[in-house]
Amino acid sequence: MIGCRSDKEHINHSRELLCVSVQQCINPLLQKLVRRLFKHCPTTGESPCMNMNIAAVNALPYEDFVDILGNVVEKCPIITAAVWSGRPFLSLAALEAAISEFIDALPESGKEGILRCHPDLAGRDLQSGSLTRESHEEQAGSGMGALNSGEASRMARLNQEYKGRFGFPFVICARMHDKENILRQLSKRCQNERALERARGIEEVKKICHLRLQSLVLTANRL
Amino acid sequence: MIGCRSDKEHINHSRELLCVSVQQCINPLLQKLVRRLFKHCPTTGESPCMNMNIAAVNALPYEDFVDILGNVVEKCPIITAAVWSGRPFLSLAALEAAISEFIDALPESGKEGILRCHPDLAGRDLQSGSLTRESHEEQAGSGMGALNSGEASRMARLNQEYKGRFGFPFVICARMHDKENILRQLSKRCQNERALERARGIEEVKKICHLRLQSLVLTANRL
Repeated sequence: MIGCRSDKEHINHSRELLCVSVQQCINPLLQKLVRRLFKHCPTTGESPCMNMNIAAVNALPYEDFVDILGNVVEKCPIITAAVWSGRPFLSLAALEAAISEFIDALPESGKEGILRCHPDLAGRDLQSGSLTRESHEEQAGSGMGALNSGEASRMARLNQEYKGRFGFPFVICARMHDKENILRQLSKRCQNERALERARGIEEVKKICHLRLQSLVLTANRL
Repeated sequence: MIGCRSDKEHINHSRELLCVSVQQCINPLLQKLVRRLFKHCPTTGESPCMNMNIAAVNALPYEDFVDILGNVVEKCPIITAAVWSGRPFLSLAALEAAISEFIDALPESGKEGILRCHPDLAGRDLQSGSLTRESHEEQAGSGMGALNSGEASRMARLNQEYKGRFGFPFVICARMHDKENILRQLSKRCQNERALERARGIEEVKKICHLRLQSLVLTANRL
């Protein structure tokens, strides 16, 4: 944390950098995050705070907490909104643990519900441009937008097979895999039992959640 | 149910009417519902089925089930996605009961999470045009978009008081009330205890869910 009153020049420079960074940032949610974190930073009042810290997160009203962190589990803002009840969190890891515990306490149908809120990999939402921002970045990063026609056909066929067998989509933390590995995993996991795949899918949801949280923190810290 | 093979003229007329209705319909989700219900009607194959019936709903793949019914609880598609696991439903009332049971089984934080996914009445989402379609219709219908300045100020002050006291927004089934009654209820409910208000809010969520389901059915049946 920068001592806000001890180094005015540094602060002013940071403030200028921040203004430029926020204006240039194409992600409205991230802009909102940064503005809120600066506004709410409890140790610095209205002055900039250069780290996303848990005290700032704890100080967010629920509307902003949900706006900013509501998609760490894909299309399930209820989970973020629920864990807000458990503030204050001692650390970002504690917030992540609260999300994980909430998910674990859901009935099996609820876990399947989470999986069903996820899009297919290289599926119709990617084609139509209707993915959430986070999913788009993750799928693009793992090469899902650049499959050749053979890979695309194989992916579509395996996705259908998986959904037909389990009644929920194949979920994998795409940022941790390349397209070849994703296709291999999908083919392999089609052979599992349903209960195992439900648990496996939820493990992947938690990995995605971890990386989305980390991404928000790291990006905020770079500004 | 219309006997699809016994009255071809009637069917053709209905089909023409349907095409016009679907094209004129400004709600893409409803268009999708109607197309899917016709496509999937198990007793009529590819021919039109003039009632939204539970067999057609039960036949929906989870993607369409969630696309169509995913907002019967505001911004909580996970709930719709979860109850899909409980198909087949014997009736629309059974589907509604499954949603209600899922909500009741959530921990108290989860119920608060549901409430926090709801917008303020006459709040910033109404002003900015970012309400969901369903919420917009409900709020507009109860006069929330046409408050005079005195009413708007009172609503804003009471909403803040309510959220400050309970940590979740005031939720009421707006379709069942006019603006005077909503203001009266809000003022009165600000005085309750938190646990009572959480339960009361969830009761209202269920009323909203009931009317949203009914609305989908009735509109489909009118086409």
